[in-house]
Amino acid sequence: MMLINGQRSDTISAADRGLAYGDGLFRTIELIAGQPRLWRWHYQRLAEDCRRLRLPCPDEALLLAELSACSAKLERAVAKVVITRGVGKRGYAMPGDAVSTRIVSAAAWGGYPASLAEDGVTVRVCELRLSQQPLLAGIKHLNRLENVLARSEWDDAAVFEGLLCDADGQVVEGTMSNVFYVRDGVLYTPALDRCGVAGALRAWVMEKASESGHAVSETRPALTELLDADEVFLCNSLIGVVPVAVMAQRRWADFPAARHWQRQLHAES
Amino acid sequence: MMLINGQRSDTISAADRGLAYGDGLFRTIELIAGQPRLWRWHYQRLAEDCRRLRLPCPDEALLLAELSACSAKLERAVAKVVITRGVGKRGYAMPGDAVSTRIVSAAAWGGYPASLAEDGVTVRVCELRLSQQPLLAGIKHLNRLENVLARSEWDDAAVFEGLLCDADGQVVEGTMSNVFYVRDGVLYTPALDRCGVAGALRAWVMEKASESGHAVSETRPALTELLDADEVFLCNSLIGVVPVAVMAQRRWADFPAARHWQRQLHAES
Repeated sequence: MMLINGQRSDTISAADRGLAYGDGLFRTIELIAGQPRLWRWHYQRLAEDCRRLRLPCPDEALLLAELSACSAKLERAVAKVVITRGVGKRGYAMPGDAVSTRIVSAAAWGGYPASLAEDGVTVRVCELRLSQQPLLAGIKHLNRLENVLARSEWDDAAVFEGLLCDADGQVVEGTMSNVFYVRDGVLYTPALDRCGVAGALRAWVMEKASESGHAVSETRPALTELLDADEVFLCNSLIGVVPVAVMAQRRWADFPAARHWQRQLHAES
Repeated sequence: MMLINGQRSDTISAADRGLAYGDGLFRTIELIAGQPRLWRWHYQRLAEDCRRLRLPCPDEALLLAELSACSAKLERAVAKVVITRGVGKRGYAMPGDAVSTRIVSAAAWGGYPASLAEDGVTVRVCELRLSQQPLLAGIKHLNRLENVLARSEWDDAAVFEGLLCDADGQVVEGTMSNVFYVRDGVLYTPALDRCGVAGALRAWVMEKASESGHAVSETRPALTELLDADEVFLCNSLIGVVPVAVMAQRRWADFPAARHWQRQLHAES
């Protein structure tokens, strides 16, 4: 079910700036019995992204009500929230009188096979290099052609994710996930101030790690730093925490950090 | 009037990848009595952009018929063609079975004041630096948040356009136009192999210059090269050829090259 500005609909104006320019942002959220998991982190990210793109952030209670309405009768659902700058006249200038478009939808979702989280996944290194734009870095905006092109580099179902580096060769993220790695017991994650998407689960891991006195270090790792790591794991709001078993020529068999965060995440929900 | 995949409509599916990811491209075209100006260059650019994004390019005769139908009874119209990868299931992977979405629309258009082309315009230098992505450079795709943010840097109606440099400080284009400059009788334009949009009118100027034995040189100019130029002009399919009268501290009063290309363009149509 889909609600567009609170009304049941599944179409938007073809003049919406979300289509014309990708002028908007989105979030993908898991719902259990109508309740969004990790909501606080999702809403914080949404509010921050809205602020940076100068979009009005929807009221929290309204969004929660719409998410619940869209997933009625679904025990487990995947929801998507899209906010655009709405319909505007021709031209890039932000219209002063635009009414933003709010799209909330949810569908039944079966989750991923448990083997991914249990046994780990195979990751390839993408050839596409992410461009660097500090003004957009971290935002889950609708300009996602780089992700589309990177994901089109492979169609081998055995490869779960593609690792993305920036033009300087530094690891940033996966095409649909954030990346953490462990070295000598310390947890690291790539800084996302030049490119990449700062996911809600990444924010949750960083907050929980900080609270436990082991703050995550944000770095600009070369690919070799990940290949030399004791452990690498991916995360996003749908896959949860997934260890990397194979990347390039490197294989990992033990995933103590991923197991720790999987347990923490299980306890969170 | 708007046609979506040939049918009268003004809405698209909210699940269209054009909205979700900006997974598509567009063109803006002037129509005179239903006939697109500079059509050969527009269609060449459209076909090239479709090839690079692996989108099916609409048949030329079909597009011409739809442009004409959309602008019936309009003496002068501005048309927009949008091609997206259509509705797909969740995820960045290009769906194998997607049917692309083709949006053709036109509206009456009064043009710009003649004084712009006659007296020249004021151009500011934007603070935003364009990111570099060779895989997308030149394509008129739907990921245009950089243009939106750059255009939001000013709201002084006396400033017609903003000049965009890349992260290396090299001039690339305007937020909605391409840039040419003249030095010692030679015409130059920034190379667009790292970022920027290669417009149809830019392609036309380059082809005509080449045919006359004075090929345009593609360069990576620093801002100072434009400020030191004998002349700078902007172009796109709607504004035509517009000389720059003021940029930063520099003023220009004579526009012989712009006048030449304005005459050529007038003769073309």
